[in-house]
Amino acid sequence: MAGKILLIFLCMNVISFSVNASLRPHACAVESGGKCSESGEWKGEFFPGIPKIKYEGPDSQNPLAYRWYNAEEVIFGRKMKDWLRFSVAFWHTFRGTGVDPFGAPTKYWPWEDGTNSIAMAKRRMRANFEFINKLGIDRWCFHDRDIAPEGKTIQETNSNLDEVVKLAKELQGDNIRPLWGTAQLFMHPRYMHGGCTSSELGVYVYAAAQVKKAMEVTHYLGGENYVFWGGREGYQTLLNTDMEYELDHMARFLEAAVAYKKKIGFKGTLLIEPKPQEPTKHQYDWDAATTTNFLRRHGLIGEFKLNIECNHATLSGHSCHHDVETARINGLLGNIDANSGDAQTGWDTDQFLTDIGEATMIMISVIKNGGLEPGGLNFDAKLRRESTDVEDMFIAHIVGMDTLARGLRNAAKLIKDGSLSELTHRRYESFENELGALIEAGRASFEMLEKKAIEWGEPKVASAKQELAEMIFQSFL
Amino acid sequence: MAGKILLIFLCMNVISFSVNASLRPHACAVESGGKCSESGEWKGEFFPGIPKIKYEGPDSQNPLAYRWYNAEEVIFGRKMKDWLRFSVAFWHTFRGTGVDPFGAPTKYWPWEDGTNSIAMAKRRMRANFEFINKLGIDRWCFHDRDIAPEGKTIQETNSNLDEVVKLAKELQGDNIRPLWGTAQLFMHPRYMHGGCTSSELGVYVYAAAQVKKAMEVTHYLGGENYVFWGGREGYQTLLNTDMEYELDHMARFLEAAVAYKKKIGFKGTLLIEPKPQEPTKHQYDWDAATTTNFLRRHGLIGEFKLNIECNHATLSGHSCHHDVETARINGLLGNIDANSGDAQTGWDTDQFLTDIGEATMIMISVIKNGGLEPGGLNFDAKLRRESTDVEDMFIAHIVGMDTLARGLRNAAKLIKDGSLSELTHRRYESFENELGALIEAGRASFEMLEKKAIEWGEPKVASAKQELAEMIFQSFL
Amino acid sequence: MAGKILLIFLCMNVISFSVNASLRPHACAVESGGKCSESGEWKGEFFPGIPKIKYEGPDSQNPLAYRWYNAEEVIFGRKMKDWLRFSVAFWHTFRGTGVDPFGAPTKYWPWEDGTNSIAMAKRRMRANFEFINKLGIDRWCFHDRDIAPEGKTIQETNSNLDEVVKLAKELQGDNIRPLWGTAQLFMHPRYMHGGCTSSELGVYVYAAAQVKKAMEVTHYLGGENYVFWGGREGYQTLLNTDMEYELDHMARFLEAAVAYKKKIGFKGTLLIEPKPQEPTKHQYDWDAATTTNFLRRHGLIGEFKLNIECNHATLSGHSCHHDVETARINGLLGNIDANSGDAQTGWDTDQFLTDIGEATMIMISVIKNGGLEPGGLNFDAKLRRESTDVEDMFIAHIVGMDTLARGLRNAAKLIKDGSLSELTHRRYESFENELGALIEAGRASFEMLEKKAIEWGEPKVASAKQELAEMIFQSFL
Amino acid sequence: MAGKILLIFLCMNVISFSVNASLRPHACAVESGGKCSESGEWKGEFFPGIPKIKYEGPDSQNPLAYRWYNAEEVIFGRKMKDWLRFSVAFWHTFRGTGVDPFGAPTKYWPWEDGTNSIAMAKRRMRANFEFINKLGIDRWCFHDRDIAPEGKTIQETNSNLDEVVKLAKELQGDNIRPLWGTAQLFMHPRYMHGGCTSSELGVYVYAAAQVKKAMEVTHYLGGENYVFWGGREGYQTLLNTDMEYELDHMARFLEAAVAYKKKIGFKGTLLIEPKPQEPTKHQYDWDAATTTNFLRRHGLIGEFKLNIECNHATLSGHSCHHDVETARINGLLGNIDANSGDAQTGWDTDQFLTDIGEATMIMISVIKNGGLEPGGLNFDAKLRRESTDVEDMFIAHIVGMDTLARGLRNAAKLIKDGSLSELTHRRYESFENELGALIEAGRASFEMLEKKAIEWGEPKVASAKQELAEMIFQSFL
Repeated sequence: MAGKILLIFLCMNVISFSVNASLRPHACAVESGGKCSESGEWKGEFFPGIPKIKYEGPDSQNPLAYRWYNAEEVIFGRKMKDWLRFSVAFWHTFRGTGVDPFGAPTKYWPWEDGTNSIAMAKRRMRANFEFINKLGIDRWCFHDRDIAPEGKTIQETNSNLDEVVKLAKELQGDNIRPLWGTAQLFMHPRYMHGGCTSSELGVYVYAAAQVKKAMEVTHYLGGENYVFWGGREGYQTLLNTDMEYELDHMARFLEAAVAYKKKIGFKGTLLIEPKPQEPTKHQYDWDAATTTNFLRRHGLIGEFKLNIECNHATLSGHSCHHDVETARINGLLGNIDANSGDAQTGWDTDQFLTDIGEATMIMISVIKNGGLEPGGLNFDAKLRRESTDVEDMFIAHIVGMDTLARGLRNAAKLIKDGSLSELTHRRYESFENELGALIEAGRASFEMLEKKAIEWGEPKVASAKQELAEMIFQSFL
Repeated sequence: MAGKILLIFLCMNVISFSVNASLRPHACAVESGGKCSESGEWKGEFFPGIPKIKYEGPDSQNPLAYRWYNAEEVIFGRKMKDWLRFSVAFWHTFRGTGVDPFGAPTKYWPWEDGTNSIAMAKRRMRANFEFINKLGIDRWCFHDRDIAPEGKTIQETNSNLDEVVKLAKELQGDNIRPLWGTAQLFMHPRYMHGGCTSSELGVYVYAAAQVKKAMEVTHYLGGENYVFWGGREGYQTLLNTDMEYELDHMARFLEAAVAYKKKIGFKGTLLIEPKPQEPTKHQYDWDAATTTNFLRRHGLIGEFKLNIECNHATLSGHSCHHDVETARINGLLGNIDANSGDAQTGWDTDQFLTDIGEATMIMISVIKNGGLEPGGLNFDAKLRRESTDVEDMFIAHIVGMDTLARGLRNAAKLIKDGSLSELTHRRYESFENELGALIEAGRASFEMLEKKAIEWGEPKVASAKQELAEMIFQSFL
Repeated sequence: MAGKILLIFLCMNVISFSVNASLRPHACAVESGGKCSESGEWKGEFFPGIPKIKYEGPDSQNPLAYRWYNAEEVIFGRKMKDWLRFSVAFWHTFRGTGVDPFGAPTKYWPWEDGTNSIAMAKRRMRANFEFINKLGIDRWCFHDRDIAPEGKTIQETNSNLDEVVKLAKELQGDNIRPLWGTAQLFMHPRYMHGGCTSSELGVYVYAAAQVKKAMEVTHYLGGENYVFWGGREGYQTLLNTDMEYELDHMARFLEAAVAYKKKIGFKGTLLIEPKPQEPTKHQYDWDAATTTNFLRRHGLIGEFKLNIECNHATLSGHSCHHDVETARINGLLGNIDANSGDAQTGWDTDQFLTDIGEATMIMISVIKNGGLEPGGLNFDAKLRRESTDVEDMFIAHIVGMDTLARGLRNAAKLIKDGSLSELTHRRYESFENELGALIEAGRASFEMLEKKAIEWGEPKVASAKQELAEMIFQSFL
Repeated sequence: MAGKILLIFLCMNVISFSVNASLRPHACAVESGGKCSESGEWKGEFFPGIPKIKYEGPDSQNPLAYRWYNAEEVIFGRKMKDWLRFSVAFWHTFRGTGVDPFGAPTKYWPWEDGTNSIAMAKRRMRANFEFINKLGIDRWCFHDRDIAPEGKTIQETNSNLDEVVKLAKELQGDNIRPLWGTAQLFMHPRYMHGGCTSSELGVYVYAAAQVKKAMEVTHYLGGENYVFWGGREGYQTLLNTDMEYELDHMARFLEAAVAYKKKIGFKGTLLIEPKPQEPTKHQYDWDAATTTNFLRRHGLIGEFKLNIECNHATLSGHSCHHDVETARINGLLGNIDANSGDAQTGWDTDQFLTDIGEATMIMISVIKNGGLEPGGLNFDAKLRRESTDVEDMFIAHIVGMDTLARGLRNAAKLIKDGSLSELTHRRYESFENELGALIEAGRASFEMLEKKAIEWGEPKVASAKQELAEMIFQSFL
């Protein structure tokens, strides 16, 4: 088998480079500073060298093919595409420029004309749908301000949004829908102190108007969920912050959102996306448990679920699997932003997931959860700043999708096999008796238990078999 | 003033070294491997070279004096000792041997005879009370297994405990009480998978018996609180763990503890002490918010408060001040384990707090909380492994107490001055009107807010004045 | 004394707010998106409400005054200004816009016209010198591209630079000089793979041309040092990187820089500024030790010194004090970028230093080093994104300067007192004999030492007295 | 294929549990507190239920078999066992008790009698060699104090060591040798301030005697390398430390070790093992680069190589691959301690490596290095505290060996395929011309380069293709 794989990659490389070549004529050179495209309507394909991406199996020699993701293949009675419910994140894929805190944009896609006009927004939206269709994905996610430019007034901004959203609805056709929409309450300087937790009344008011509209357009587009990511809902220093006051404002804001959702008949799930910090020193929705506590405190627990992002989980000191499981156990696993951080960096790198082990653990949780519907797996991930070929957009998504598809396959085999869950189950089997049942029913008092402890003497304690569990797990990768 | 301080320390050093010298005859040499003391009853003082520690003011030249802690001095209508409610942690101070993962014990106190006998336990208890009395502290904290040796059976263990506790009660006299007691559910190998979250029924049962007894002796000694620190309530890997099942067991266990508390008439507060990890990879009581979520989920919110430990807070990615404030805002600030970690190490170093800024922030929260009573400030802190002189025990506590006393003085001045709180308050003043009131009453709908947003246009956003806040704060240090 | 300080801040706050008021007419509202200033020549002062900042002593009630920094005051035979050699960083102070990875600019200084023209560059330079003069500082630092706009060709870019630099020289007058200059090899997309370690020959060549010019203008302006910060000299992943090849290129580049320095007669020190990561996953100049190893390996050790930045040191896992001491011990302490990170965030926050303890430790090292000349203390620090008043620029610098001045005062007292250094010295006194001398001379063989070990038996080991050291240290804060 | 793997694990689990059962009669129950074994000579096998571990291929159903490690199989012209050169770490495997900072021992192996006698040491050594032989490994590593008890004097200690070493030599037979030996300079309290960097002369002297003897016995046993791990060569606080003085002592000590090595004719490599911290706050041999700098500074660069430990590399902020490559590039890659940490914990967890991707990257470096001989891959890894079955010792080593063997297979295929290295190579191809050659020869001055830059104008910059590199890499896992 080794020989075969070797061949694949010798060939693949050739393909890769010829793909590059075929794209070059359309590419807008880095050194041009963009603006290579004319402002008129775009003719023909945005990705002329890229075919519809197909499943070719693990032995495929083609970098522009799926090796693990086979959308229609049935696993545990459900199609892969229905387990995975992939979504393209409009912002990273179509608005990511490669800017970082120390660097200017590096990406000048051929269809960009260097403006932030409505015409450009619409052209970009066409590129988005060609991209989604070529990948064979049915969902996308967006912030309001990614897809349409801000105007001079709220009314103008909303009108811009309406114009672009109308086109998006047309381009969605019958099959494509937003996995979720959201409002961008962090980029504009008015939100520098937060949106609903801003120290300024005017900003709270403005944020409400913006979220109202974003909920409306998400509903209009048939969005399945609506997300709150509180990027600036937090603090830079406690020295100038009234944390309790701000948290109360956040609760009032979310209550108003729930009321408005009901009023407009939006049936999708409202999701909160935890993140510990960045851009603020400390965000209020630190992690799954913190956010759940907030929801419980304010009686919002039935109205929201969580959108767990892997890179956010690791920044908060947990494994991604931990935070996914914490959400699941609290009955709040609504969606996963499937990306990955770098284990050695202290900020959000938003990389496409390539770790097979991590993907397998995530998919175990998804299967245990009975799937994520109406949520899904959103690629909140971006090309590296230095990846500047148009084909890199496809390669990144393909490797992300294949990694999760491989994770799903592994998880399904692992669960079907049952060894690992049996190992876990056996660890607890001493509770499967009358006393265990009493304890679990909350009817075992300390006095009763003390009597048993005296009667039984020193308890037996079995090995946790962690290395065996790791051996079994790894053998399915 | 500079000149004076210089003199202090020239002298202080002399004193320091003469103190050393006077202790030497009683010291048990490191190289002896301990066991230098005879097993009979201890004659005379344990700390013969150490006087009762007194307040001498900031200009004192004496390392064995308080420069900032003046127990009877009144600040904001309350004595310093009543704001600070210091407590000595028996385990670190009297059972800490200097062992670390790579090293054998380094501390061989002169009163130790190298055994774990009841006689030794009682002698150690006498040393503890001499120590507490010399420091002028009124509180101490203990684990059951620190103060008395484990026997061959629960009954024998409990009987050992009773014998030592009886002496402790006698030694406590009228003034000294446990700030809190607790059960050590992490050291013995039976607890390797946890206590109430162990995979073994027998261990759950055993833990219940142990906690029952620890609650009883805490009550008997007049303890003001009872603490749960779930050192091994967590997991090493999710691969072999049923997290939901274990969390449910923990809830049942705590419910039984509440019931037993009521049954025996213990009026103290039940406290949970969050810690993110170590010894486990992930502890269930990760931080204040996580623990609060657990309490809310299981309807235990009115029955418990939190014991925030600074070094645990920083290990979980928060500042100590953040977790103290999180507990306070949730109405759960019960006690503080006042120690400090090292900003560059990823494990619990349990150092005595020496950072004036951090102490000031903690004390601001304590004052805002109206004090901590019936909780207090427990020195869950240990001598460095390489600090092996008996006098180091005193120096460490003195610097810890003085740091917090200095923090209290700074905090009081800062609050009285009002500049910093005014700066904070002004940031939110735009909410002080009718619309702000409507929002805060939960009666401002998105439609109403949108109208306002359109009417008002772009909101004004003021500077956060963080540098000014830092300047004001620092000027009080 | 408490009473007096309270008064200070009640008053200070008033002043603070009246300062704000007086600045407002000149302020360019956040909501305007900048561009409020006309493009013509700027009339009058840039900072009309701000006086020359003066020393008023610790009891001053004025936020726009120094409480600790008294430039002409002599400490250990040298003026404070000569110990501290402060420098304003042009980029943070005059080009910082408040942009972060999730947010647009927040700062619209009144003198900015929204363009990147030469006229704007010159106007900004005038603001810079008014700012420096009002602070009473004699040094500034710059990147080439901060101070003048990039043109369409190298020639045009250099000509732009010459025009602005000519004005800067004029404005410098007799007293002000660059502490250092440097070339910005990280912002432009051409440098996305690095400058001298880029995978592209053309970029290496371009970088050489740019550094050549930056060295020339630094020399022309009388700069005392020239800095290399390799922000993109590193890698994002080893999978596509030939680390050895890139490091060799870096060595060749630095050799050429040394040769060129000599050729043009630049007498200043060449400095390398270590940073572990960000923007890259891993930078080649990780920390002081790594950079020193590189210099040694390539025979460059005599030609360069280090510029230690505190926030970079902490990001690499060390305390700032550690990396400063590592540079000092290797004879390479050339300059300090005196800023601070946030102990809980994993990225470069570049805050002004406000921690008195850390400032004291840094200044101990500076004194031990006999000062930093021709290096100094550069404020590589920026206003928080949310600090948007013009006065915040001053407040931030004042608190940074006062913190280091307070650190210098503390360090001097501590050193003069001698207790702490005596404590340290005594720890090693067992080496002050013949055998110690033999060991230190490299003439004690293992055989000789084994004989001694047998003769002496178990060695005595004294307490490290860490808590006493911390007590002494803290008493000087 | 899926079906087959499922079968494997259904069966495997049965085997696993029957293996457990067969071991139970020999097991010493956790609750016994050890001491279940008699002190006389051990009869028969130590691991009676465990067969010689054999290679059965990836489809094997047997947990006590290799699925990837096939010792005699030839890869790139060399046997797997010669690429991998595995070594068992005596300390973790035979002296690890499960102690952690919060817990007592959990492991009571049946052959332990609860003493630290020479008889016990010899019995343990027999168990070690049965273990090594059953695994089919040819190497082991040891600290002097692991294998024989310390006596009352150096002479007695050395005599104890000689007695055990004599047996070890006999048991080694013709095939087994120490990969390396070392001296344990961190456990005994005399070393609390370090060994060669202790503040006490007597300790320096004692350490020299101990290292002298450890080098002798390593030589006697045919050891291939000798390691220095400076666990306590570092500091807890700079406040009481003279870092420069201590580093000089370390250099003198290592020089004496080199001299002694030559004197006794030991031909093995001297290795230094970097670790950033733990047990100290800061160790002098922080990472590969820091250690290399030290060696260069003191002219020791030709006399030592490095032993890179993966978990140490990650604790210092690098990936394991990074530090391995740093050592390789500096010509100092001598040995690898192949373990793994937990990405979310801040201390040394010393886990067996199970990450296939990481193992593949390590083995790429090993192949590039032409192998590690005379170094190898030492399992500086321990069972989890909660893994208490004798069979867990085997399972842990099998999974560790299989992971690295799988990594070797992947690395070989990846290298043979060439796609990834070609991708990397192509990135630099612009340097393959006359100017590139001049630069690399150090003959391209800034003036020459500036001319070229002007001539060429804006350079072209290609995509880094990181996602493609990750896709290729992952497809070989």
